[in-house]
Amino acid sequence: MPMTIEHLKPHIFHQFDKELEDIRSRVMAMGGLAEKQLADALSALLNFDGKLAEAVIANDSQINDMDVAVDGACIEVLVRRQPTASDLRLVLAVLRTINDLERIGDEAKHVAKIALRLVDKEAIKDRLGPLEHMGEQVKQMLHQSLDALARADGQQAVLVALADKNVDKDHDFIMRQMLTYMMENPHKIPDITPLCWCARALERIGDRSRNICEHIIYLVKGKDVRHANLEQLAEEMAAVRQQAK
Amino acid sequence: MPMTIEHLKPHIFHQFDKELEDIRSRVMAMGGLAEKQLADALSALLNFDGKLAEAVIANDSQINDMDVAVDGACIEVLVRRQPTASDLRLVLAVLRTINDLERIGDEAKHVAKIALRLVDKEAIKDRLGPLEHMGEQVKQMLHQSLDALARADGQQAVLVALADKNVDKDHDFIMRQMLTYMMENPHKIPDITPLCWCARALERIGDRSRNICEHIIYLVKGKDVRHANLEQLAEEMAAVRQQAK
Repeated sequence: MPMTIEHLKPHIFHQFDKELEDIRSRVMAMGGLAEKQLADALSALLNFDGKLAEAVIANDSQINDMDVAVDGACIEVLVRRQPTASDLRLVLAVLRTINDLERIGDEAKHVAKIALRLVDKEAIKDRLGPLEHMGEQVKQMLHQSLDALARADGQQAVLVALADKNVDKDHDFIMRQMLTYMMENPHKIPDITPLCWCARALERIGDRSRNICEHIIYLVKGKDVRHANLEQLAEEMAAVRQQAK
Repeated sequence: MPMTIEHLKPHIFHQFDKELEDIRSRVMAMGGLAEKQLADALSALLNFDGKLAEAVIANDSQINDMDVAVDGACIEVLVRRQPTASDLRLVLAVLRTINDLERIGDEAKHVAKIALRLVDKEAIKDRLGPLEHMGEQVKQMLHQSLDALARADGQQAVLVALADKNVDKDHDFIMRQMLTYMMENPHKIPDITPLCWCARALERIGDRSRNICEHIIYLVKGKDVRHANLEQLAEEMAAVRQQAK
């Protein structure tokens, strides 16, 4: 019996699914590395661990390599498979997510560089409490956004995106506190300013995690929510979920 | 004579070209608005012009609207036309560019908000010189990157991307200068810190302009250069141009 197009189809679809699955698992691996880089950078800062800071700086190129590789795989799929509807949205969401993950890696490297600079300034240890708290929040936010991505959970994505407000509040609080401290201790300005940069980097990682959540919502709902009212969206999605029960 | 697929083709291609041209012209309009927002935000800051600062803040939503609209048009083209090769690269480069332009708009708004806060602090006027200089550099960098995009000029894109180093140097210089000034005048810290944020915002706009240049290089060369050595690329492209003469 000759081979027909119908014989090929399942094979083609199967192969395509495998490609999408491959992209999905690679973006998750990249997310895992970004999480590790963030955790290590914070640990290096809080424990004055120069060796760990150097490792974070060295490992950043791994994230960059993953970015280029996954980006290439996505373009390959766009070119060869010309996906439509939800497959296309998946590829676009991944393309955007890896961009954010790569930038999160950059911010983690930035924190590691500051940690390296402050490695012999243990006297500032008592100024690190609020940063540690903010770091925990941001780590959790990134983790939950990657978790929402793994499960394509739009509802959780909305909740995590909303949590970015708390990170912004932490940032503003730390800034005010550091400013007051610097005014009272001007000779400490050179040591305290880098901590302000760290708070800023963490705030940016919060923004990027929020971006990832927005890509998930786009993936799940097919709706661009980057400038939308998230509170309203949360209510809508909760209502939908309630009805589905 | 019945209509055949051959009769339709030129019409389809013509229509597709029009769609691509439409996307291209809309991203240029968005770029023009981002340039204006940046120029106005800087002018508001340097001239303590609260009214202009408020206008910049209000106009940011226009950039956001353009972002969503052009993004939608690109997705539409991806879904309906399934472009390949250079057309696909154009759509992807536009998708990335509008993301950067939208963020440039955010940074301009950020500068405008700071300008509003400092509107009655004319005493800091003599601290604004280096920021004015940095602002001019960044405005020029953004303008040249949009110019390179309009002409799809990869060579210029490489040169503009390289110029980002000068903006980074300006940023570091301003930060050191402000730190020293704050140490000598701790009571001025609340007025000077916002200027540090402005320098930071300008540095970010430089980064985003560099991103746009990288998208142009990707568009022209079909090569992802986000983590590449730009100096080497500049040499390569100059050599190619020399040979073409």
